[in-house]
Amino acid sequence: MSNSFGKIFKITTYGESHGVGIGVIIDGCPAGIPIDEELMRIDMQRRKPGQSKITTQRKEEDEVEVLSGVFEGESTGTPIALSIRNKDQKSKDYSHIKDSYRPSHADFTYDQKYGNRDYRGGGRSSARETAARVAAGAIAKMVLAHYKVSVQAYVSQVGSLRLEKSYQEMDLSEAENNIVRCPDQKMAERMIDLIDETRKNRDTIGGIVTCVIKNTPIGIGEPVFDKLHAVLGQAMLSINAVKGFEYGSGFEGVKMYGSAHNDAFTREGERTITRTNHSGGIQGGISNGEDIYMNVAFKPIATIMNDQESIDKDGNEVTVKGKGRHDPCVVPRAVPIVEAMAALTITDFILRAKTSKIE
Amino acid sequence: MSNSFGKIFKITTYGESHGVGIGVIIDGCPAGIPIDEELMRIDMQRRKPGQSKITTQRKEEDEVEVLSGVFEGESTGTPIALSIRNKDQKSKDYSHIKDSYRPSHADFTYDQKYGNRDYRGGGRSSARETAARVAAGAIAKMVLAHYKVSVQAYVSQVGSLRLEKSYQEMDLSEAENNIVRCPDQKMAERMIDLIDETRKNRDTIGGIVTCVIKNTPIGIGEPVFDKLHAVLGQAMLSINAVKGFEYGSGFEGVKMYGSAHNDAFTREGERTITRTNHSGGIQGGISNGEDIYMNVAFKPIATIMNDQESIDKDGNEVTVKGKGRHDPCVVPRAVPIVEAMAALTITDFILRAKTSKIE
Amino acid sequence: MSNSFGKIFKITTYGESHGVGIGVIIDGCPAGIPIDEELMRIDMQRRKPGQSKITTQRKEEDEVEVLSGVFEGESTGTPIALSIRNKDQKSKDYSHIKDSYRPSHADFTYDQKYGNRDYRGGGRSSARETAARVAAGAIAKMVLAHYKVSVQAYVSQVGSLRLEKSYQEMDLSEAENNIVRCPDQKMAERMIDLIDETRKNRDTIGGIVTCVIKNTPIGIGEPVFDKLHAVLGQAMLSINAVKGFEYGSGFEGVKMYGSAHNDAFTREGERTITRTNHSGGIQGGISNGEDIYMNVAFKPIATIMNDQESIDKDGNEVTVKGKGRHDPCVVPRAVPIVEAMAALTITDFILRAKTSKIE
Amino acid sequence: MSNSFGKIFKITTYGESHGVGIGVIIDGCPAGIPIDEELMRIDMQRRKPGQSKITTQRKEEDEVEVLSGVFEGESTGTPIALSIRNKDQKSKDYSHIKDSYRPSHADFTYDQKYGNRDYRGGGRSSARETAARVAAGAIAKMVLAHYKVSVQAYVSQVGSLRLEKSYQEMDLSEAENNIVRCPDQKMAERMIDLIDETRKNRDTIGGIVTCVIKNTPIGIGEPVFDKLHAVLGQAMLSINAVKGFEYGSGFEGVKMYGSAHNDAFTREGERTITRTNHSGGIQGGISNGEDIYMNVAFKPIATIMNDQESIDKDGNEVTVKGKGRHDPCVVPRAVPIVEAMAALTITDFILRAKTSKIE
Repeated sequence: MSNSFGKIFKITTYGESHGVGIGVIIDGCPAGIPIDEELMRIDMQRRKPGQSKITTQRKEEDEVEVLSGVFEGESTGTPIALSIRNKDQKSKDYSHIKDSYRPSHADFTYDQKYGNRDYRGGGRSSARETAARVAAGAIAKMVLAHYKVSVQAYVSQVGSLRLEKSYQEMDLSEAENNIVRCPDQKMAERMIDLIDETRKNRDTIGGIVTCVIKNTPIGIGEPVFDKLHAVLGQAMLSINAVKGFEYGSGFEGVKMYGSAHNDAFTREGERTITRTNHSGGIQGGISNGEDIYMNVAFKPIATIMNDQESIDKDGNEVTVKGKGRHDPCVVPRAVPIVEAMAALTITDFILRAKTSKIE
Repeated sequence: MSNSFGKIFKITTYGESHGVGIGVIIDGCPAGIPIDEELMRIDMQRRKPGQSKITTQRKEEDEVEVLSGVFEGESTGTPIALSIRNKDQKSKDYSHIKDSYRPSHADFTYDQKYGNRDYRGGGRSSARETAARVAAGAIAKMVLAHYKVSVQAYVSQVGSLRLEKSYQEMDLSEAENNIVRCPDQKMAERMIDLIDETRKNRDTIGGIVTCVIKNTPIGIGEPVFDKLHAVLGQAMLSINAVKGFEYGSGFEGVKMYGSAHNDAFTREGERTITRTNHSGGIQGGISNGEDIYMNVAFKPIATIMNDQESIDKDGNEVTVKGKGRHDPCVVPRAVPIVEAMAALTITDFILRAKTSKIE
Repeated sequence: MSNSFGKIFKITTYGESHGVGIGVIIDGCPAGIPIDEELMRIDMQRRKPGQSKITTQRKEEDEVEVLSGVFEGESTGTPIALSIRNKDQKSKDYSHIKDSYRPSHADFTYDQKYGNRDYRGGGRSSARETAARVAAGAIAKMVLAHYKVSVQAYVSQVGSLRLEKSYQEMDLSEAENNIVRCPDQKMAERMIDLIDETRKNRDTIGGIVTCVIKNTPIGIGEPVFDKLHAVLGQAMLSINAVKGFEYGSGFEGVKMYGSAHNDAFTREGERTITRTNHSGGIQGGISNGEDIYMNVAFKPIATIMNDQESIDKDGNEVTVKGKGRHDPCVVPRAVPIVEAMAALTITDFILRAKTSKIE
Repeated sequence: MSNSFGKIFKITTYGESHGVGIGVIIDGCPAGIPIDEELMRIDMQRRKPGQSKITTQRKEEDEVEVLSGVFEGESTGTPIALSIRNKDQKSKDYSHIKDSYRPSHADFTYDQKYGNRDYRGGGRSSARETAARVAAGAIAKMVLAHYKVSVQAYVSQVGSLRLEKSYQEMDLSEAENNIVRCPDQKMAERMIDLIDETRKNRDTIGGIVTCVIKNTPIGIGEPVFDKLHAVLGQAMLSINAVKGFEYGSGFEGVKMYGSAHNDAFTREGERTITRTNHSGGIQGGISNGEDIYMNVAFKPIATIMNDQESIDKDGNEVTVKGKGRHDPCVVPRAVPIVEAMAALTITDFILRAKTSKIE
């Protein structure tokens, strides 16, 4: 198990889907950061189940309690522990899958790795775990606010419905004005229809979340193995259901010639900038001050409402019943999770960069 | 700087393109592994410059000296230090870029981050650094041989030339029979022509390396942050010029419905297997015994032979001359680098998994 | 802040003396360990305040709640989170020290390092933090039970009262039969008298805790920096008020000649043993199967009941009043803390050793 | 194996006593530090064998080659690799111990842990490994020079000959004026005589090195587990032959009452200082600006020139012959090693502290 992320601003999470609770310790948050619990509550609301007709109807309140590390409204430099109690633990819902290996879930691999398994709702492998990430990410965003860095994610694809506009062509804040979190309202409607139709078919569908980080300080990222985009990649790929990551020109960039792909430097007043940004704000693994943007690919989640054939622990054939309350498409709720992982990564690297040179 | 990779089988690399030498320490290699330096030499040959008309004509011998950790032909459990002296250090070639910021290179970001910079040949940001990874990867492959795990990479795309066959449809060992390292000989010829044409145009072009890992033990990978594919992603994204990573169904998978994407479990004798493998051999971040496969996207490298406009340290406009000896397309030489990073990652996780449960 | 300890069996603690609560996440506990909460309760009782006339009369219940990582009575390999709510938070007791720097406390250094400080009861610097260590240590002892390793600590010195008998000459289980936790009942009485007298003088006094680890598997410890005794040393020195650590022959050993100090090997049936054990069970940083024994020196704790002259934040002279409820001598309650740190260290190294060689 | 030390300023060492060479990579040295190889050479001379009649007569030149990370006389922020080739590799000297377990050496434990062993001169367990620490420590001292921190060690005890003067009562620079490195010339003579007599008796003897660190910035140290003194303890205990560590009042402090032990704060101009310094410059694990001082206890080294009874791998009784060239007392040559570990530790913590608070 490796439940920590980050080297200076380091989070460690715990908790199973249907255990007593989940939570996170943030070790390494600098002292002196104003902590606004309301901002945390807002991000928790964006992630929580049951927020619209296209998300699971399961109810989780996800109230976060701050147990330590904050005094008189400010971080103290000591560990910040955040606790979320599980309230809606309908354990009986899961007895039917106790011995079955649900297709494309982690039931089989957990059993093989650990020899036992908390089968209730997927246990630790459930995406419920990401609630702790969002809570910690909200604290990271408070640190980033000090550095004027903003992180904004949105849904850019659902199934084959792809938003062709680049992020510069839209007002990203519009994403929060519809339930699918796509900043283009027309595309949003089509996406919502597709998800709703998928839900009615008792099926699920994949999608892409795009994330844009603006105003990153120049010089963060730690070559050669902790290049900024490499750790962003790990961060995103560690989210449940993610199958791919690209930044800057990404997979499309492979088709380009260097003469077209290279980003020419120029000056804007005292600032050195680039005319294009195929680099995605990162060169040699280090931020260059331009926007950092990336795509995160989510597969259709494995829990579908139709019956599926599978086997159980003992190799017997079984039918896995489709029941419970699940998301037909994970990307709308994944938006704050992607933001959280981006914020946690950038915060860690800003702190790490403080030791790069002697001044 | 973060020049270590791995938690148990941990490598730490050093060295600049035109310094005295480069190298790596492997800390945590188990004792008792037969060390065959010839295998290391073979992988170094696959990576070295000057091996064909479509790679740079720069000569580097890349002889690896084993300084420690091996005794009487076996690893001893102590650190294995590998050293490669730089021989072809034509420093004068680089005086013209001393103060210039080459487009899409790391000159600007290194200067900003560190306040100074070894400008000779890109210094630490040069892909020369990956020679140390290949040397260490060869040792990792020797550990994997003990576990019967194989790692094989090949070129699946150059520019827009995309090999549509899946890895199962080809004999991957054919990849080493042509200079572009594509297992389909017809496509290989087309790719070679495209790279050669690009070279003649003094330009560069991108490509994709596909990597397949077979026979991974079931149960490796460390959720929730060190999911197997998440660390594979970091490993690949840390290679110079990589812009994207996907595994299993990857970016295409987002278009699928869950009912089609889910991999049904079944039995083959005593083994539990899946009928399809959209999961790419990893479920919940843990290997399930099926093949692990992934794509790694490389941009066109930034050094082109045509002149480019840029600025220097002081903000003056300069022309960056295209000269020196560079690869028109990086993917043929990237094949052993991708394999090395895969081998290092899998080796580390096999060792990490030894503590998952009490037996 | 660095609130994690261990590399495989890794604990991360949080919490302030007078905050909402304290706790710990154990990441890396192997699956399949029977978890007996009663054993945890027993160690918590041994550490808790108010247990006798020679400890502080402050009441803390220290009930530990298991939030995750345990299912049907066994560890699952996922993080085990343990939570202890603070109940006796008489914050008003501490307003008098809000701006004062108490002599030999961490008030000054925390203020300097972090710029702010939770001054209530010492905040994070309070020994209350060690309750989380004891809870985690109890889990470690459950892992060690699987390996038949025992850890036993006792008080061997209070002030100048030094127990001259070696640990082999006593029944160490006797230590729990008196309130000072010294296995020699006569010496225990003298120690109790000395502590009681010190308490009446409103003063404090130091002492030594000796710890003995039996039946450690041969071959644990990770040279060259994580030698077994080096990490045991860090573990012990990280406990509040500890000023020194020695193992085996320790400081006395410097006076010896090599011819007398060397431990001759011999055989006992099939086992290789040593005739003497000046090495303290560790050679070259690796366990040799003999008993591991060590001394941990505790200073007199800084909180005394008499008034002291000091200064405040602004440099003004102030009188620090002696009030509150504090231990006149910390060693009786430190016994389970020393055991916890030993158990955590040994557990981590047993797991780390699983990757030393290929079998 | 764990051959890394430090979290930001991190060293990784390699090499066996009689292999090709030893060395170290420093990852995380800030850019912009002037690197003076002559300072490194001086410390290597202080550690090297054969420097006087009371050290081993073995000759090792210990020339350090800088392979990377330094450009135009300054650190660049990239890894600094230092290489020392082994020159005096009389392997034939060691064939007689190939299968024997020398008393109180690591032969037995390495064999048990790793299943094989480089038996030449102790292989990795040889104190030859510390040469790499001294080389890295010299770089650390160059970083500390930037912060005006000084580190000075000296011999304060050999066998029962104990220097009773405190470090404040002597001119510590005098330590380098005699071959035993004791700043009191009279005591130095007595110590030299004792070591010489021990050498003639073909025996060895232990000793204590005291180390004083002046001008440490206030606020370094990372509670709760990486308290400054806890990591200093680990650093010192990781040196070959060390059996104990104490700082400030140390083991003697346990006899004191709190009223006498507490260090009263006062002001000296604008600075907050303490009237006494039983705390040894560290309170709550964080530096308070006072001198940091510590004692490090070295046992008599195990290689004596007299014959000893032991057993071999197969359990047969054997006589271990006393031959070769070894130190009768390790402390004179240990002085620069202790300084190196102190310098490495302080440097790491100064860098770590840069992220404690938002400014």
